[in-house]
Amino acid sequence: ILKDLVRWIPIASVVGMMAGTASATLLASLTWATNIRESHRWLILLLAPAGWAVGLLYKLFGKSVEGGNNLILEEVHDPRTTIPARMTPLILLGTFISHLFGASVGREGTAIQTGASLADQLSGPLRLTSPERRILLMAGISAGFGSVFGTPMAGAVFGIEVLAIGKLSYDAIAPCFLAAFVGDLVTRFWARFVPGVAHTHYVVGDVPAMTVQGIVLAAIAGVAFGLAAMAFSRLTHFISHTARRFISRPEFRPIAGGLVVTAAVFALGSTRYIGLGVPIIVDAFHNKLPPYDFAGKLIFTAASIGTGFKGGEVTPLFYIGATLGNALSRLLPLPAGLLAGMGFAAVFAGAANTPISSTLLAVELFGGEAGAYAAIACVVSYLFSGHTGIYGSQRVGRSKF
Amino acid sequence: ILKDLVRWIPIASVVGMMAGTASATLLASLTWATNIRESHRWLILLLAPAGWAVGLLYKLFGKSVEGGNNLILEEVHDPRTTIPARMTPLILLGTFISHLFGASVGREGTAIQTGASLADQLSGPLRLTSPERRILLMAGISAGFGSVFGTPMAGAVFGIEVLAIGKLSYDAIAPCFLAAFVGDLVTRFWARFVPGVAHTHYVVGDVPAMTVQGIVLAAIAGVAFGLAAMAFSRLTHFISHTARRFISRPEFRPIAGGLVVTAAVFALGSTRYIGLGVPIIVDAFHNKLPPYDFAGKLIFTAASIGTGFKGGEVTPLFYIGATLGNALSRLLPLPAGLLAGMGFAAVFAGAANTPISSTLLAVELFGGEAGAYAAIACVVSYLFSGHTGIYGSQRVGRSKF
Repeated sequence: ILKDLVRWIPIASVVGMMAGTASATLLASLTWATNIRESHRWLILLLAPAGWAVGLLYKLFGKSVEGGNNLILEEVHDPRTTIPARMTPLILLGTFISHLFGASVGREGTAIQTGASLADQLSGPLRLTSPERRILLMAGISAGFGSVFGTPMAGAVFGIEVLAIGKLSYDAIAPCFLAAFVGDLVTRFWARFVPGVAHTHYVVGDVPAMTVQGIVLAAIAGVAFGLAAMAFSRLTHFISHTARRFISRPEFRPIAGGLVVTAAVFALGSTRYIGLGVPIIVDAFHNKLPPYDFAGKLIFTAASIGTGFKGGEVTPLFYIGATLGNALSRLLPLPAGLLAGMGFAAVFAGAANTPISSTLLAVELFGGEAGAYAAIACVVSYLFSGHTGIYGSQRVGRSKF
Repeated sequence: ILKDLVRWIPIASVVGMMAGTASATLLASLTWATNIRESHRWLILLLAPAGWAVGLLYKLFGKSVEGGNNLILEEVHDPRTTIPARMTPLILLGTFISHLFGASVGREGTAIQTGASLADQLSGPLRLTSPERRILLMAGISAGFGSVFGTPMAGAVFGIEVLAIGKLSYDAIAPCFLAAFVGDLVTRFWARFVPGVAHTHYVVGDVPAMTVQGIVLAAIAGVAFGLAAMAFSRLTHFISHTARRFISRPEFRPIAGGLVVTAAVFALGSTRYIGLGVPIIVDAFHNKLPPYDFAGKLIFTAASIGTGFKGGEVTPLFYIGATLGNALSRLLPLPAGLLAGMGFAAVFAGAANTPISSTLLAVELFGGEAGAYAAIACVVSYLFSGHTGIYGSQRVGRSKF
């Protein structure tokens, strides 16, 4: 064990440093992209050609890495070949372009891909065996996730929980924890010097003491969150399959998505469903929002991700969950802020099939009392979201029912 | 899924109600036993005959349930026959006697055994299949653990995490969560009416922001906690094996343990290592304690449990961890309260091989910031505690290294 540890401590630390630096780069670039877009709204008119550019970028340089998160999960399940280093610049650039022109995408996909692909560059020089490479990739996932959201406990467990639905094994637990904690620290370190890197702080407000009614309400909300997660996963897969079927050239697919999103923005006269949507997420904790916001974000995101824009699903899932929770506060006698926090974690739990890391995420972002409500919502959402998650290469370790 | 849920919601709720009521009974009886013992210190002189009474009780009425926690784990792994209902009164009485006369034992074993054996009484009338009975028992474990410590998230995950080292599956996740949350509520409900049921509130105090140094210090402390956990498990097993080898009649074994503990109390002129030790645990968060307290408690508990006193290991493990953390504050530049909280969770994590539920326990009892330090300590402790935990029937799902 000591030999193993002496080996993994520096490796996981380096993985964390690389992932944390990549996440800081990503966060700064997205703040920049978002600020430019907000002050030049006409950029959204160029979303379709921007999508074409992203598609072309991957066609010309990124054939080997277009699998994205699924490529990483497949390499963990069945290690074959080192993930090309080019995954990192390509996904950072693709995500930047997607956000600059107003696609509705997230950032965890990017953080996971940079974390894992940078980590994997160590596997050759260090002559790691296949089982060791698996651990390395899981540590990269943990470090990417933990650093981009500022939630190292959730990131650490996410790296071991996301591989398979319904079970979890602890082979990589120590490297994942170390890489996630180091990654988070490194991103927070950069936040002191680089503008736009800081994490958003969410405030849940008063949390009522847990009661039988509280359990029942959290479970009912959890059903709604799980169904929203399932709707999102299925719609995204449907759009993706349809686009593949009717548009044979991959670089043209984001053009279709871009046109739809641009048209929808002008038809609605609103930009509230594009980009990361962090201001709306924050709003969902404090103010009454239109009850259909979650559906708007769900459709915009499925159209963006399903046609090939880059960035990931998780921040949009936070948005869908927080606004759905906000909407549920019209029906359920729980505070809107608490329901927003529960939805934030639980729609993600259902879509990624990661109830335990989602619970830890809720605890880290919202505290232990809100975390207890979120835990119930996460488990119920996980049960009701079906076996089709956002990560197609996730395996079914154990059926949910 | 709906049919399954409609079936499990009432079952898990009833499991929670029974376990929560049993935990309340246990907590009230232990407060009573502890108060009597503290005001009649001479009772410790009767620990050896009390041990004989406990042994005789199990010899006469409890042959079928003397396996205790291990019997429950074995039934989950390999369901054969319903756990006899008599497990509940026997373990409650055995634990009461153990505490009244000053054995160094805990209460989680009792809570798990009452939770699981009461739950199992439903399996006959409801005609549950073997796979369903496994879920029922896991829900009983979760409800017992969650209710006795007032930590439903930790209890819920404990029920699925304790079965095997190194992996975890989600079959029973919903019944375990529901039973644990209901169990906790029911115990808290009784606490309003019955004196002595309330949970202890621990205050960690200031937690420094996480730094690289913080990670390193938490990991170093985690090594110490893991080695203490391993020492405890091995010493307990050694004493148990030795007692079995040299004392053929089981009811005589606790006499030996009782004599040793009584003699040690008088030799030391101190009762600080007997019983639950909650006042010392609380003290460890606030004051400088003798650095050998953890070793004293470790030996007293191994002597008590290893010879057959009843109650369980976990509260003594909290004591060992909190006092060891307190002692480490002489060496490591972290606040004593934080180190006490980390040890509280992490020695338990190492001894029970349950790093994730221990992390949740820390978050629930001490908050998210201290929980982050505890998480690192729990994972490292888990890695360093070896493959021999306190539960002999726990299986090795995945080797630690």
